[in-house]
Amino acid sequence: MRDGLQIEAQTVPTERKLAWIEQLAGSGVDMLQIGSFVNPQRVPQMADTDELFRRLAAPGRKRPGVVYTGLVLNEKGLERAMAGGVEYVCMGVSASDTHSRKNTGMTTADATDRIIAMGRQAVAAGKRVQVSVQSAFGCGFEGAIPARRVVDIVSRFVDAGLTTVSLADSSGHADPDQVEAMIGAVKAVSATIDITCHFHNTFGMGLANVYAAYRSGVSTFEVGFGGLGGCPFVALAAGNVCTEDVVHMFQRWDVRRDIDVAMICEVTKDAAAFFQKALPGTIHRTGPISHRGRFADPANG
Amino acid sequence: MRDGLQIEAQTVPTERKLAWIEQLAGSGVDMLQIGSFVNPQRVPQMADTDELFRRLAAPGRKRPGVVYTGLVLNEKGLERAMAGGVEYVCMGVSASDTHSRKNTGMTTADATDRIIAMGRQAVAAGKRVQVSVQSAFGCGFEGAIPARRVVDIVSRFVDAGLTTVSLADSSGHADPDQVEAMIGAVKAVSATIDITCHFHNTFGMGLANVYAAYRSGVSTFEVGFGGLGGCPFVALAAGNVCTEDVVHMFQRWDVRRDIDVAMICEVTKDAAAFFQKALPGTIHRTGPISHRGRFADPANG
Repeated sequence: MRDGLQIEAQTVPTERKLAWIEQLAGSGVDMLQIGSFVNPQRVPQMADTDELFRRLAAPGRKRPGVVYTGLVLNEKGLERAMAGGVEYVCMGVSASDTHSRKNTGMTTADATDRIIAMGRQAVAAGKRVQVSVQSAFGCGFEGAIPARRVVDIVSRFVDAGLTTVSLADSSGHADPDQVEAMIGAVKAVSATIDITCHFHNTFGMGLANVYAAYRSGVSTFEVGFGGLGGCPFVALAAGNVCTEDVVHMFQRWDVRRDIDVAMICEVTKDAAAFFQKALPGTIHRTGPISHRGRFADPANG
Repeated sequence: MRDGLQIEAQTVPTERKLAWIEQLAGSGVDMLQIGSFVNPQRVPQMADTDELFRRLAAPGRKRPGVVYTGLVLNEKGLERAMAGGVEYVCMGVSASDTHSRKNTGMTTADATDRIIAMGRQAVAAGKRVQVSVQSAFGCGFEGAIPARRVVDIVSRFVDAGLTTVSLADSSGHADPDQVEAMIGAVKAVSATIDITCHFHNTFGMGLANVYAAYRSGVSTFEVGFGGLGGCPFVALAAGNVCTEDVVHMFQRWDVRRDIDVAMICEVTKDAAAFFQKALPGTIHRTGPISHRGRFADPANG
């Protein structure tokens, strides 16, 4: 609901967002990013984030087992998130100085200091916190991002007690071989890191990267229904890896059969109708493969 | 030029095919499938296959280092291919009885007998021969295809001395985990098998499957520029994994830098103009990632 909708010219009305959130939460996913606490003048698509959290907190509305997260970019956003009772706060820093400056006006080093301070503040207030490294696999402005730079940022996070870390391929430059190498390098920082991956499908390698990360031991992925999304501040934006396509792939090998792909596809279809355009994901058009994966029927195996 | 063009309603004129072939051969790929020797009434898009081979054999026209292959479905096609001086002949059998019957009117077992006889005949005539197993990873009609059935067909090929084997995911049902398992099972048949993989991107897993196969030791892939293609006789046809997208991915880790991705993209752009539609591949629209892969600049690494 955040990375997917922030780049679209058309703002989704709050009631429709709530309907999509209910549907997605009902599909069985673990977490939903509801919105970001940013300047509503700058990102009007996210202007109703406080209201969404308030309405989702109404008695009886909270669906058990689903965590609603919010993204914050600065101290003011963090204050709003904490005032609104957000239980899980996401924040991040770009490994690319150029991307960092465009996104926040600060260098990577300065932004890391700030994010660590914010993260500690949120932890002290009893929140769950995820810290991300954006442009972790390359940058449309700077080109290759040395793995060492990513490892250094992650080390600083871990030293500060912030061990839930997302590696975000904001530019879509990651390739699966690089993903395996990067995960290995980041895992070597500390045994306590909980790694999430966040890929964009800019150059078509999104699902290959998810597979490579999964092979490397990552089991949490940030994805976007319909393949919507993209950071407005990268050189060439493209959608997130598509939620239903990722879930469909995992279900081929009997992982997360509890998630209802069809329910996610319904949201994607409604979003395609709302935005009046074809969305980049696949499964909402084709439907899932008609038979269960090769492990489903031992007699057939 | 074969799997990519056979399903399009509009037949590409011979002169345009020759221009595309010259361009693709010039890009540095190893092999091009020029066409299939099928009934021109049934598949008019392939009616000029004999003429294409004749013209490509003209003095000075053959580009050194590129192999031109032709697909044959039956004895009559094989006769035409041999009469036309085709040096590399491809033929195959579907692991799905239903797909086999729709494609050839024969069961898998009968079609295997026939293909082995044809393959031996071509080998005896001094041709290089590739035998494929179609629907090797699932079938839109039959569902899951047991790995044992694929292994049995490959064993029969190998026993007959036909060791260049393509595993074709005609339906696009393959997932990367299944690919690794299947390659392992097929490699166990014999140490002399030379495995090629052929994936369709029906459910978005094409590049992930290429990566999984490459990890498993496969280094030959059949792909289609622009992501064109699809077998007319499967339940839900979709394009081949896109040539330029696959090459681009490999080049991220410094494999096959000798292939000129831009030259392939030019063919895709001309094909999009010819067919007057957007083609499914990615790199012809985005261009390649602007910097070389993470291995390219050791100082940056």
